[in-house]
Amino acid sequence: MDNGKIGQHISGQFNKELEDIRNKVLTMGGLVEQQIEKAVQAFANGDTELADEVIKQDNIVDALEIAIDRECNQILALRQPAAFDLRLLITVIKVINELEIVGDLSESIAKMAISLSDIEGSKKDSYYELQHMADLVKGMLHDSLDAFARMDVDDVATITGRDENVDREYVSIFRQLITHMMEDPRNITRTINVLWTVRALERIGDHACYICEHLIYMMKGQNVRHSTQEELQKILEKGKK
Amino acid sequence: MDNGKIGQHISGQFNKELEDIRNKVLTMGGLVEQQIEKAVQAFANGDTELADEVIKQDNIVDALEIAIDRECNQILALRQPAAFDLRLLITVIKVINELEIVGDLSESIAKMAISLSDIEGSKKDSYYELQHMADLVKGMLHDSLDAFARMDVDDVATITGRDENVDREYVSIFRQLITHMMEDPRNITRTINVLWTVRALERIGDHACYICEHLIYMMKGQNVRHSTQEELQKILEKGKK
Repeated sequence: MDNGKIGQHISGQFNKELEDIRNKVLTMGGLVEQQIEKAVQAFANGDTELADEVIKQDNIVDALEIAIDRECNQILALRQPAAFDLRLLITVIKVINELEIVGDLSESIAKMAISLSDIEGSKKDSYYELQHMADLVKGMLHDSLDAFARMDVDDVATITGRDENVDREYVSIFRQLITHMMEDPRNITRTINVLWTVRALERIGDHACYICEHLIYMMKGQNVRHSTQEELQKILEKGKK
Repeated sequence: MDNGKIGQHISGQFNKELEDIRNKVLTMGGLVEQQIEKAVQAFANGDTELADEVIKQDNIVDALEIAIDRECNQILALRQPAAFDLRLLITVIKVINELEIVGDLSESIAKMAISLSDIEGSKKDSYYELQHMADLVKGMLHDSLDAFARMDVDDVATITGRDENVDREYVSIFRQLITHMMEDPRNITRTINVLWTVRALERIGDHACYICEHLIYMMKGQNVRHSTQEELQKILEKGKK
């Protein structure tokens, strides 16, 4: 792990605090990645036990968010950091909020897995596509956290660029599901659950992009929220020159 | 406007900066409230012109978020505030994020209004209930911003408590819509749009609650994210004694 920017402080204790926070964010991130994985598995296999596990583990994600948020606020108050350190702490507060939301989305997928298990009907439709979409967004989240860990924005435009595939996948599955409901209205209740799940996955892709945006702010001091993919690429290219 | 806590600084310039930020947040909040109102009207009346207006105005909301966020970061860097001032700035950064999301949700309701206008079918189903739900969440958002303006947490538990009504309304409309789709599968595409809109409104209610939670953190220094309504009431009661 390259901690180039961290570790230049006169106070060794301060370095330790920042490093500790960064590690906690990565722990939280790893946990959230697992949550997505398990929730989608529970959904695809109708595994209510696994779904219960996801719901219970969301408390750990929530507790981690509160603990890291508190730690950031304490450091802000006591150390009154400036420049990069200040941006790092503000970024961490924003990133853990994104992770907490992704945790909630995973939890809601798990809840839909449970409510689906009560509903009769063919269970295999669209699950293959759903798994593919889940892999896409999990990959985006993983790579955005990896970029955060390396404090490296060189590849973030390729991560946010992948959201286009997620959106395309979403539209395609959405259409299939509508057709499926029209063909047999008895499918409606069940299909609506699949629909929510696909929507939740699409939103997880968005939050991975937000993490990339926060990282750009941290490294470059530039707020790129609401920038298009092209604008984002230009901003990052400029920095490389 | 009682600005009791602001205005105790030696530096008059600093007071001015904090007051300015607070006013900008309220401007942004007012704009977002209008966006919800217009989006739901556009949706209920099939008014695509009004929907276009909402979509265009979302840029103003986004720009306001970026401007306020930048201002907060500048003050954090230059003034290195502590205690209440620090919490105020961190809270503003979080509140404008909630407002921006509510702006996005309004924009997506406007987009659904436009896509609905292309779809044939009876236009009046569930719109009455939808309007009622919109009034509920708009009221919650308005009151949470009002509490923020007054820096007063005394009434916030009654605001967050209203989210239960929103959720109840949501479940009831949701069931109606499913029945509606089952009765006539030709309604499906149109009804799915209504379903997204109801979901968006339900989420706006959640974000109003988050604003209340951020306000409690600001005023009491206590992170109440993920607290139940009962826990929240207890925390606020304790403060009153």
